[in-house]
Amino acid sequence: MFELLAQDRQSKARRGRLTTAHGAIETPAFMPVGTQGSVKAVSPRELRELKAQIILGNTYHLFVRPGLDVIKHFGRLHAFMNWDGPILTDSGGYQIFSLAKLRKITEEGVAFQNHVDGTAAFISPEIAMEIQATLGSDIAMVLDECPPWPCERDYAARSAEMTTRWAARCKNAPRQDRQLVFGIIQGATFEDLRKESAQAIVDLAFDGYAIGGVSVGEPEEEMMKAVESSEPFLPNDKPRYAMGLGTPPQLLELIARGMDMFDCVLPTRLARNGTAFTSLGTLNLKNAEFAMDKRPIEENCACPACAEFSRGYIRHLVKAEEILGLRLITLHNLHFYLDLMRQARDKIDNGTFDAFRRAFVSDYKDQRNLAT
Amino acid sequence: MFELLAQDRQSKARRGRLTTAHGAIETPAFMPVGTQGSVKAVSPRELRELKAQIILGNTYHLFVRPGLDVIKHFGRLHAFMNWDGPILTDSGGYQIFSLAKLRKITEEGVAFQNHVDGTAAFISPEIAMEIQATLGSDIAMVLDECPPWPCERDYAARSAEMTTRWAARCKNAPRQDRQLVFGIIQGATFEDLRKESAQAIVDLAFDGYAIGGVSVGEPEEEMMKAVESSEPFLPNDKPRYAMGLGTPPQLLELIARGMDMFDCVLPTRLARNGTAFTSLGTLNLKNAEFAMDKRPIEENCACPACAEFSRGYIRHLVKAEEILGLRLITLHNLHFYLDLMRQARDKIDNGTFDAFRRAFVSDYKDQRNLAT
Repeated sequence: MFELLAQDRQSKARRGRLTTAHGAIETPAFMPVGTQGSVKAVSPRELRELKAQIILGNTYHLFVRPGLDVIKHFGRLHAFMNWDGPILTDSGGYQIFSLAKLRKITEEGVAFQNHVDGTAAFISPEIAMEIQATLGSDIAMVLDECPPWPCERDYAARSAEMTTRWAARCKNAPRQDRQLVFGIIQGATFEDLRKESAQAIVDLAFDGYAIGGVSVGEPEEEMMKAVESSEPFLPNDKPRYAMGLGTPPQLLELIARGMDMFDCVLPTRLARNGTAFTSLGTLNLKNAEFAMDKRPIEENCACPACAEFSRGYIRHLVKAEEILGLRLITLHNLHFYLDLMRQARDKIDNGTFDAFRRAFVSDYKDQRNLAT
Repeated sequence: MFELLAQDRQSKARRGRLTTAHGAIETPAFMPVGTQGSVKAVSPRELRELKAQIILGNTYHLFVRPGLDVIKHFGRLHAFMNWDGPILTDSGGYQIFSLAKLRKITEEGVAFQNHVDGTAAFISPEIAMEIQATLGSDIAMVLDECPPWPCERDYAARSAEMTTRWAARCKNAPRQDRQLVFGIIQGATFEDLRKESAQAIVDLAFDGYAIGGVSVGEPEEEMMKAVESSEPFLPNDKPRYAMGLGTPPQLLELIARGMDMFDCVLPTRLARNGTAFTSLGTLNLKNAEFAMDKRPIEENCACPACAEFSRGYIRHLVKAEEILGLRLITLHNLHFYLDLMRQARDKIDNGTFDAFRRAFVSDYKDQRNLAT
């Protein structure tokens, strides 16, 4: 169940609360990505201390390894990984299209060979729902086809239509008790296709709606346009999830465009490369300039890394390839993303979100394009 | 200062307390190895939660990277890595002999090129002490030559004599305020050389004594003999440190032979390979037999990994190369070693150490030789 708690006056930003079988999520919300049953380098206890409200699990990865028989034996994904908060699982489609080999898409579903040991498998909309029921996630996503960028209009149109038919099959499939199911809007970068997809998916009446087919290499402008083309057709009383996005300024821009939920590997992935997020942009902690720097990654940051460690020490750990280095940057980056959402919620609550967004976006200087 | 609190009646096992500038250490004690300013994969907070009493820092590694200018800028090693408990530093000699290139040993010291960027450097006994004074460790080790195994008697004799002359130079070198300095006994596997070395080093009157030249590939029997040949000549009122050792049964055997302090990379290194210690021997968690195993690594273990996670989940993490997997096994293994020392101390206190040692060694079945 979703409650819309407040609506910003200067933008489409919303404050909401989504209630799931494992607790409520205050929106806007960021979901750390737990690809293979673990948010990379972080323990469930640390996630709780970071006040992560919900995490994401990748159905494809868990299907390939450890496999459903193992998850089922341990109960569900929550029990297996010892995370008792809400979990959203994707359908597996995105990874099949980006990682698996020898894919063959038909109306019935997708045949593929997994990227780990080459085992052949087949996933249909019904099977994707069955897998997610087994994982026991709080929010399941419909199986969709995520077309590449750029994409011919004709292909995008036919793909979006099939995604709608697949969504209908997912809607009718059995689900875990109290499991929410979100539909996914496709249509690539074509405004009219986005509208058609949004209307068709909304007609199927899901518990929430995701914008898919973004974060596939398109320019930021196209990404924003895809969201703007879809959003007007989404009901106010359901959560909206922008899939796989984005940089900190992008998240605020997407909130301003009416999005409520986000997942992104940037905070964890860039951490493993020595890159930390700050409100003024990213820092590459491998750089020599930080060797003698006694400051924390970010002044006044409440994360466990900034409470205890200097940039100079973390730089040393990264250069020496010590695991603690990437652990500390991961904690900082996740805190940064989660705290950005906390601030956004507060600012929407007290009516100052738009000024906050403008100031943040203006101050934030990325040293490189992180979007793709 | 070292207090001998109790002496076992059936063996040479001792209970003691070593007071350092950063606190007291109850002995027998295990020192987790913080090679490059970090106990691999573990945070200082986790070390405190594991009740680690003292950690080891590797002078050679810290000298090479980040370098003394960085450590000095941050104050001392404690401040740099945010560990406010006791630290023991080695002299750097062992790593120069095992890692560095183009070594040239003279009476004056050792010239070498470091293994990271090939920079040429020179370490003498005086420089080794100066570096450790800069690191600010609570316990510094003298510079010694650690001969390989096997080793000709003639070489071992000349080497041990030079180590004694180097020890005298270290003794006379300036040290950090309140820094303790331990001498190192050499003599390879030759009983008379061990005796001569022990007597000569003890004559120099150090704050503690280490058995060096063990854990260099020799059979366990030779290692025990080297300790047994040295120990009778060590004063009762000073701590004894068996360097670089060993497996869990070996630690109990060494305690029974009068040793008080230990350091070993096995718990952290094997963890990164998926191997966990239990009181019945090691488990290779990569093995398929653990895929469905709901038990913790060890029943009734009080470590953070066993409190929350199953063998099956940890196996999945290890197989999927998730960092959390090696983190959890590292925590378990360090807890296992630290807890073994706690048990040994308790058993010595209540006069049941020898029975405890016999039972433990008899129950413990290693699946392979971990000693080398």
